[in-house]
Amino acid sequence: MTAASEEGPTISTGPTVREVGEFALIARINAGREQGSAVQLGPGDDAAVLTAARGRYVVSTDMLIEDRHFRLDWSTAEDIGRKAIAQNAADIYAMGAEPVGYVVGLGIPERTPVDFVTGLADGFWAEATRAGGSIAGGDIVRSPQVVISVTAFGDPLGEEPVTRSGARPGGLLAIAGRPGWSAAGYALLAGGHVPESGPGAATAVAAHRAPRPAYDLVRAAVTGAHPPVALTDISDGLLADIGHLAESSGVAIDVRSAALRDTELAECAGVLESDARQWILTGGEDHVFAGVWPAGSPPPPGWTVIGDIEAGHGVTVDGARYRGPQGWEAFSGTDSANVGHSR
Amino acid sequence: MTAASEEGPTISTGPTVREVGEFALIARINAGREQGSAVQLGPGDDAAVLTAARGRYVVSTDMLIEDRHFRLDWSTAEDIGRKAIAQNAADIYAMGAEPVGYVVGLGIPERTPVDFVTGLADGFWAEATRAGGSIAGGDIVRSPQVVISVTAFGDPLGEEPVTRSGARPGGLLAIAGRPGWSAAGYALLAGGHVPESGPGAATAVAAHRAPRPAYDLVRAAVTGAHPPVALTDISDGLLADIGHLAESSGVAIDVRSAALRDTELAECAGVLESDARQWILTGGEDHVFAGVWPAGSPPPPGWTVIGDIEAGHGVTVDGARYRGPQGWEAFSGTDSANVGHSR
Repeated sequence: MTAASEEGPTISTGPTVREVGEFALIARINAGREQGSAVQLGPGDDAAVLTAARGRYVVSTDMLIEDRHFRLDWSTAEDIGRKAIAQNAADIYAMGAEPVGYVVGLGIPERTPVDFVTGLADGFWAEATRAGGSIAGGDIVRSPQVVISVTAFGDPLGEEPVTRSGARPGGLLAIAGRPGWSAAGYALLAGGHVPESGPGAATAVAAHRAPRPAYDLVRAAVTGAHPPVALTDISDGLLADIGHLAESSGVAIDVRSAALRDTELAECAGVLESDARQWILTGGEDHVFAGVWPAGSPPPPGWTVIGDIEAGHGVTVDGARYRGPQGWEAFSGTDSANVGHSR
Repeated sequence: MTAASEEGPTISTGPTVREVGEFALIARINAGREQGSAVQLGPGDDAAVLTAARGRYVVSTDMLIEDRHFRLDWSTAEDIGRKAIAQNAADIYAMGAEPVGYVVGLGIPERTPVDFVTGLADGFWAEATRAGGSIAGGDIVRSPQVVISVTAFGDPLGEEPVTRSGARPGGLLAIAGRPGWSAAGYALLAGGHVPESGPGAATAVAAHRAPRPAYDLVRAAVTGAHPPVALTDISDGLLADIGHLAESSGVAIDVRSAALRDTELAECAGVLESDARQWILTGGEDHVFAGVWPAGSPPPPGWTVIGDIEAGHGVTVDGARYRGPQGWEAFSGTDSANVGHSR
């Protein structure tokens, strides 16, 4: 039994992955899990086999690195596992599809407690249950720090996937979910604040530890009478990701800042003397969904109209260019551009 | 322009990924690449979209960590890229399927030269061209060392995938490819030997740097008149992976060591006063394919019969239990169990 270790998570005094070995570890992770209906063959062979209900499938992949995308002293193993699945599931929904399966590559130090790995797996499965689909396979390797790579697969909810390129002038931009809360949680944790430190703090910290994308609202929108013509998820920051949508569609987007006001988040920002508006416009990781509906076809209940699609290019806020960083960039080293991401 | 750096690959004096930024880097990686016919939507949206020719798809994932699965001073970026795709493509073929697409998660230090990343991408595409399919998407993040996570997707070549569980007593075990060469290359490199250091050394070192799985021989076997009833690829070691096949099928396997003799590899082993037999039986990473054919249905040309399927359980060599490590285990720290894998 190893209590302390120089490397790797130390949340437990139980056995380490080195002590139990790769195959026993995999057996523990998979014990008692039930595969979804799309998984014809799950873990245990050279590869998994999944069915594609409509003859095509949607695929997304994301990699999370310890101390860059999560911190072991800020989040539980289950939080981290949930976050890894949520950000991939959100990408699948953002294509107008629903997840049916995931494979997970996991790099861990040899002194990692087995409990940490089963905690991660519990998080993977908990969020997969919420989003749809099951963990159909994976790979576990030794690594100097925790690395998680999730690939998600989904079936389109409609006949065709919904891309970022369908927005046209005259349309309305609407979102599902509340942007800025994960950035607020990051700011609180980075400042050493506890969840009890002020109004909204517990909500913000929870949002940062594991996002809760509004999967149901996307599903209802895509399968409803008036589906969106373009769709994306906000992972790098609202302005940044709406910018990608505008560019893909060949349109301009003007954001109505009044529609984004969030008095609870403003109260939370007051504690830190921070700017809730900056969190809302540039914080990623809430995995808020952004959709575009054509003129005369309003978004369904639960979606908030926050902008207008116009001819031209680029994103403006209340008609003016927004000054300051727009969102996350993988190799940027400035804190101001990385709000909402732990590093 | 950064020449030397404290972290990350330093093969170039050109710009680093931090200097060009995430989006310019992604644009360079994807420039001029042509997607395969199964990729309906490639990089640039929330997710990729692929077609499933037979209404189902086969999925495999593998993670490679710098200094554990490859060394930057032993392999070029293109070697590493080819290896990452090859080991996943081999898993797809080992299910009796052919790859149609891949997504790649890539973690790199911010000081990595752009040339290194484009070299990796060239390797990904070169091996994808050889194996089938194209790189349909990915994710690039900052990481303390190079981490590569590949997920491959394939269409079954026949009506059903070929699993590990179809072997029955009376059948013959055959392989396509020459096992032990990657382990030999590892031993040579670890011993400081250059490719010119003796007979077969150049072949062995090349095999370790980037495997060349016999995709064509699996394809011909699976689509031929007498397809195998069980199939796997040798990634952890011949005895270890045949052991998994035996266990999945509920049979015993006896390996005929005479059929595995390799005089060229024995010459190569002589230089190091090593044992070629150990490399052959326990070295992984050549991604040799192992198939089982029922009694009276011989394997096709190019496959070598190396064993017999019997009632019972476990793997024997010439009727006796093999003493010593059987192959690779992710968290084992002993060198003898890790032949063929750099750490």
